[in-house]
Amino acid sequence: MTRPRPDGRALDVLRPVEMTVGFQRMAEGSVLYRAGSTVVLCTASVDEKVPPWMEGKGKGWVTAEYQMHPRSNPVRRENRDGRGKAPSGRTQEIQRLVGRALRAAVDLEKLGERQITIDCDVLEADGGTRTASITAGFVALALALAKVEQKGNLKGPVLREPVAAVSVGYLNEELALDLVYLEDSKAEVDLNLVATRSGAIIEVQGTAEGAPVPRREIDRMIDLALNGIRDLTSIQEKVLASAGISLETMLIEK
Amino acid sequence: MTRPRPDGRALDVLRPVEMTVGFQRMAEGSVLYRAGSTVVLCTASVDEKVPPWMEGKGKGWVTAEYQMHPRSNPVRRENRDGRGKAPSGRTQEIQRLVGRALRAAVDLEKLGERQITIDCDVLEADGGTRTASITAGFVALALALAKVEQKGNLKGPVLREPVAAVSVGYLNEELALDLVYLEDSKAEVDLNLVATRSGAIIEVQGTAEGAPVPRREIDRMIDLALNGIRDLTSIQEKVLASAGISLETMLIEK
Amino acid sequence: MTRPRPDGRALDVLRPVEMTVGFQRMAEGSVLYRAGSTVVLCTASVDEKVPPWMEGKGKGWVTAEYQMHPRSNPVRRENRDGRGKAPSGRTQEIQRLVGRALRAAVDLEKLGERQITIDCDVLEADGGTRTASITAGFVALALALAKVEQKGNLKGPVLREPVAAVSVGYLNEELALDLVYLEDSKAEVDLNLVATRSGAIIEVQGTAEGAPVPRREIDRMIDLALNGIRDLTSIQEKVLASAGISLETMLIEK
Amino acid sequence: MTRPRPDGRALDVLRPVEMTVGFQRMAEGSVLYRAGSTVVLCTASVDEKVPPWMEGKGKGWVTAEYQMHPRSNPVRRENRDGRGKAPSGRTQEIQRLVGRALRAAVDLEKLGERQITIDCDVLEADGGTRTASITAGFVALALALAKVEQKGNLKGPVLREPVAAVSVGYLNEELALDLVYLEDSKAEVDLNLVATRSGAIIEVQGTAEGAPVPRREIDRMIDLALNGIRDLTSIQEKVLASAGISLETMLIEK
Amino acid sequence: MTRPRPDGRALDVLRPVEMTVGFQRMAEGSVLYRAGSTVVLCTASVDEKVPPWMEGKGKGWVTAEYQMHPRSNPVRRENRDGRGKAPSGRTQEIQRLVGRALRAAVDLEKLGERQITIDCDVLEADGGTRTASITAGFVALALALAKVEQKGNLKGPVLREPVAAVSVGYLNEELALDLVYLEDSKAEVDLNLVATRSGAIIEVQGTAEGAPVPRREIDRMIDLALNGIRDLTSIQEKVLASAGISLETMLIEK
Amino acid sequence: MTRPRPDGRALDVLRPVEMTVGFQRMAEGSVLYRAGSTVVLCTASVDEKVPPWMEGKGKGWVTAEYQMHPRSNPVRRENRDGRGKAPSGRTQEIQRLVGRALRAAVDLEKLGERQITIDCDVLEADGGTRTASITAGFVALALALAKVEQKGNLKGPVLREPVAAVSVGYLNEELALDLVYLEDSKAEVDLNLVATRSGAIIEVQGTAEGAPVPRREIDRMIDLALNGIRDLTSIQEKVLASAGISLETMLIEK
Repeated sequence: MTRPRPDGRALDVLRPVEMTVGFQRMAEGSVLYRAGSTVVLCTASVDEKVPPWMEGKGKGWVTAEYQMHPRSNPVRRENRDGRGKAPSGRTQEIQRLVGRALRAAVDLEKLGERQITIDCDVLEADGGTRTASITAGFVALALALAKVEQKGNLKGPVLREPVAAVSVGYLNEELALDLVYLEDSKAEVDLNLVATRSGAIIEVQGTAEGAPVPRREIDRMIDLALNGIRDLTSIQEKVLASAGISLETMLIEK
Repeated sequence: MTRPRPDGRALDVLRPVEMTVGFQRMAEGSVLYRAGSTVVLCTASVDEKVPPWMEGKGKGWVTAEYQMHPRSNPVRRENRDGRGKAPSGRTQEIQRLVGRALRAAVDLEKLGERQITIDCDVLEADGGTRTASITAGFVALALALAKVEQKGNLKGPVLREPVAAVSVGYLNEELALDLVYLEDSKAEVDLNLVATRSGAIIEVQGTAEGAPVPRREIDRMIDLALNGIRDLTSIQEKVLASAGISLETMLIEK
Repeated sequence: MTRPRPDGRALDVLRPVEMTVGFQRMAEGSVLYRAGSTVVLCTASVDEKVPPWMEGKGKGWVTAEYQMHPRSNPVRRENRDGRGKAPSGRTQEIQRLVGRALRAAVDLEKLGERQITIDCDVLEADGGTRTASITAGFVALALALAKVEQKGNLKGPVLREPVAAVSVGYLNEELALDLVYLEDSKAEVDLNLVATRSGAIIEVQGTAEGAPVPRREIDRMIDLALNGIRDLTSIQEKVLASAGISLETMLIEK
Repeated sequence: MTRPRPDGRALDVLRPVEMTVGFQRMAEGSVLYRAGSTVVLCTASVDEKVPPWMEGKGKGWVTAEYQMHPRSNPVRRENRDGRGKAPSGRTQEIQRLVGRALRAAVDLEKLGERQITIDCDVLEADGGTRTASITAGFVALALALAKVEQKGNLKGPVLREPVAAVSVGYLNEELALDLVYLEDSKAEVDLNLVATRSGAIIEVQGTAEGAPVPRREIDRMIDLALNGIRDLTSIQEKVLASAGISLETMLIEK
Repeated sequence: MTRPRPDGRALDVLRPVEMTVGFQRMAEGSVLYRAGSTVVLCTASVDEKVPPWMEGKGKGWVTAEYQMHPRSNPVRRENRDGRGKAPSGRTQEIQRLVGRALRAAVDLEKLGERQITIDCDVLEADGGTRTASITAGFVALALALAKVEQKGNLKGPVLREPVAAVSVGYLNEELALDLVYLEDSKAEVDLNLVATRSGAIIEVQGTAEGAPVPRREIDRMIDLALNGIRDLTSIQEKVLASAGISLETMLIEK
Repeated sequence: MTRPRPDGRALDVLRPVEMTVGFQRMAEGSVLYRAGSTVVLCTASVDEKVPPWMEGKGKGWVTAEYQMHPRSNPVRRENRDGRGKAPSGRTQEIQRLVGRALRAAVDLEKLGERQITIDCDVLEADGGTRTASITAGFVALALALAKVEQKGNLKGPVLREPVAAVSVGYLNEELALDLVYLEDSKAEVDLNLVATRSGAIIEVQGTAEGAPVPRREIDRMIDLALNGIRDLTSIQEKVLASAGISLETMLIEK
């Protein structure tokens, strides 16, 4: 028999997602993303040149920065993340992941020699901040690309496919989708999946914090995560539509 | 004859101020402050102990941290403020100012051995971010103190008087209140004033960026700024009231 | 038809592995690990206390540090990894992974309040340095635990199961085991697997550098990697036996 | 009735000032400044180019660095100011202030594309080190400009007006000029003023460390400080004259 | 009467030296050097350009880096040498010494505009790691120069003379050659000498840790050290010969 | 025939030395040292406790810090030595040398559990700043010890013997004492000697910047340096006498 989840959800159900588009008015793309008690501000900035090491290749670049607000947790962190010292290993690991995930959504050659930076500022953290950064980051990216297109700076669509991410985990031998912090910290196994709307996989990261797990559990986790990602990409589409942007017209035809 | 201001205001009028209380749900005090195109997120965190160098004195402490979001400006800053290195001189100067200003609002002995940290995260910057941090920081502080009081951890009021801050400046020989960025960067003289509701002065910082200015201009600037501060403290009071908090009952009687 | 691999191996065959036990004579556990042209020096150090944040819990800790020698590549790196600045994000990501992987091999409560640090110094790098660090790190860990046991400081076995790691990848639509650098840099998909001798999974990290990949390719990659890990754990056992250590007697009985 | 000041001065009297010109023999301008027990070594260095961000604008630049000697206080500071880490917020705040103050003394366009750096090394600190840095810094600046002129590298005068600075404060409700450390640390209000010989204001910074203060006290403080500055500029003139430099001929005519 | 040395050697005898040439296969010159329980990995890397500050002078450069492995001592160092902060003063002092010593072995003009970097990684430390770095570093340097010559990139020999280094010290008033750690830490006087095969001196560094010493003891120490260096240069020659390199043909004729 | 030296001295003559005692009035020992165009401010500070790693051993400690003023050279250094980063290797090497040299002058057990820090601030640099720091540092140390004695905190003398230091070098095959910068930068061999009044050697550091040198030249250099040191210790004695301090009574009897 199943114990109830901390927020009362069924095991295979996502937290309710809410996105406010245009929260920061000067950015090309801005999304305030809320999934239950996790809040991430994703900001896409377009720079009409690439970093020096990429110059002259005719290709663009997408990168990400991630930072926890000092009071994104129930207790204030004594020091601001990365202030006066290098960002923590965890922060760097996450921003590298977000960058890779969002680059997979874009045809960098079609993007042309420009860079898009996605800032992911976690304002409230209740688990799933890295997957939220990817899911919301894609929306911010699409908003920014729409701005570039409006200015006539793109020759055609540059997005390959919508990209989203979600976590799954085993808790008391039950498989649960989209873990909150309390679940995440207790999960025996924890897997983050980044995938496209059609279910193609971009990144899988699974860790057995406790005992190693049988192969078949990994399989079931990936299945459940792919379901969640399908739902998240459908939410992304609606949010963009409500901002007057048709995602389909931004996708490269195959 | 007077040239119009960039946002159409009269010379002696504040930008419209809007505050959203409780924006971050885990913090004791949280205010999202908008004054025109300047947006600051002020977050007050209560720690039930003081820093080591203050222990055993029976007094509390109020301190502040300030950070610009990398996309708070029309163009993204290449590096996050203070990431991987010490915060800039400007950032440190501002957070020291905000800390001093808000400490002046509190009777530290009555506060008891606890520390309140005010995080000031600038999400959009159109001039006046340091004065906004003080004005909004006072509201966050009052919210946090109300929380401490509700828990029964205070023996009585600890606030001396409401505190707010505003900038004034000379532009083309005209005196203007609450400068936006475009004005601030062109002002011949620029003065920030921190004062109480009753007009007592906590801090005055005036700089003639161009030619030195006659004494009487400083006088006129202080007069105008005190008018602005009176209006701002009245807005603070209304915002707190709308959150169910009566500021008057939080003030130490004189 | 299959193109030959850079080092002539079949697609499903590991590089030849050679381990020199006791390379550093002062360390409790020391292994010089060579797999083709990848050489990693793994050194296990026992500290008879745990870090401050773990004190008094009656549990031990296993952690890892990773560093690339400046001339582990065909061209010397201009700067030593992490010298005068924080280690790179990649370095931190790897050492966190190695630490998690090796902690999974140990029952931390049975280990008691002591810490084992595994230093992984890459002397030559031809792909697979993070998986080599885990596979060799396990041997160094077992050597160190044997030393602790000989001193009579353990009450019984503390190892759960041998742990090893390997990479797999898709190249030109062919699946290959244990990629060398040339393959790794061209792989469309790249997956690192950490698992036990019996095939239970500790960590899976897969990244599609190019186009996202169908679910079934991930499945095939995990299958191939598990084969490789079986072979690696059998090599670990032989190396330990040749050093006079019976791995079986060090394992906790289930 | 008035309590005596720690050094016996009347409330409205400056400390005796002594300046040794040419203390460091290789510098274009060098002044060892003593005001009572405060000693600052001000060194002006001319660089015949400007920083990269100012190149090509046809304008010069004046900047300052400030450092406390580790034994400028009764007890040695454990660490040298800014060694191995960024200079403290206080240090940065002061050197930014000194730079602004001395730039106000110069017509940067007439200065031409060269930079003058004023190093302010505090050898003994008994209050008023930042105002001493400005007052002495102006003399070092004038000496350096005289050197540049002697080499025939200036087309005419570049100084607008002599600049000096002084502190004032309220102690036990009495207003005092030029505070020593003991007074400064006890002052209820503390105001630093930077102004020209003719009484035009460049910078005013006033802070009520204790209770906020009425507007009229600020007014009285500025009046007293302006008196002190008049005296200090007269001392500057004499010191320069004794070094064979006529300040009047270095001033741009109005 | 003479007390025995910790490793049983006579007072004027070197530790047995063993060098493995080509330990790191990608480097132009690589030597694993063992002298008793001191083990240093010296790696010479050729860069076909010089640092910016040496460009265009038609001369080459030789430089060194030195690092202690965290477990080169009986107990693991808590932090990797120089990780996340500047290398220690001791490390910098040693690598500057090694660089100077090896530059003295080379005619930098004949070397031409290329840089050779000698990495000295101490894997085990039992005294004499700086002198071992020089003696082994010379062999790595010669191996690298032989590689450059084979490629036809040198017009003739560039080595002046073989260079080696050794320590001597007074222990209980007896003079001993090539101190191990236990001796070094107790020596009243300790002297490191860098010299050529023919006995010309490149560097002498002597320190009386206890009482200052009479002039004649310094003289005796230099004599003994020169004997040791003669033996070390003869070992260098044999090691190079066994690697198929005739040192004599690499020396500039006088 | 001998070429004249840049400052006209004979080859075996020291620069004229001038010391101002008590330059910094708050320090226990303060000396402004001028030798020709080299000026060093040496400041001795007494701390009535030792660093944590020395506590409880009943011994004292003497340590040194060294810093170049940014304008101690004909051209200003762009960055202050060690500001915002670790002090340079050269700076660390020098301050370690000065510390060792001055510790040799003191019986640390007789000193008792207190630390004396010698700050060496180079105000003008014309060669020999490290030897000047030692020679002047000894005087500052003696002044500070006299202060400690006056307070009745010492049971008897703690100084072993006066200590001084000087450089010698070969220029155009001529041996010269006490090199100025122009000579030092051209010297083929350069040797710094630290010794006691009676000629016992504390430290010898000789470097052949050009070709290695025969043994007998090192001998002649040491002889000449010892002469210089005899003169310097006699100057130290006179300076202390003029400050009312009898050096002889401060020396431990042998």
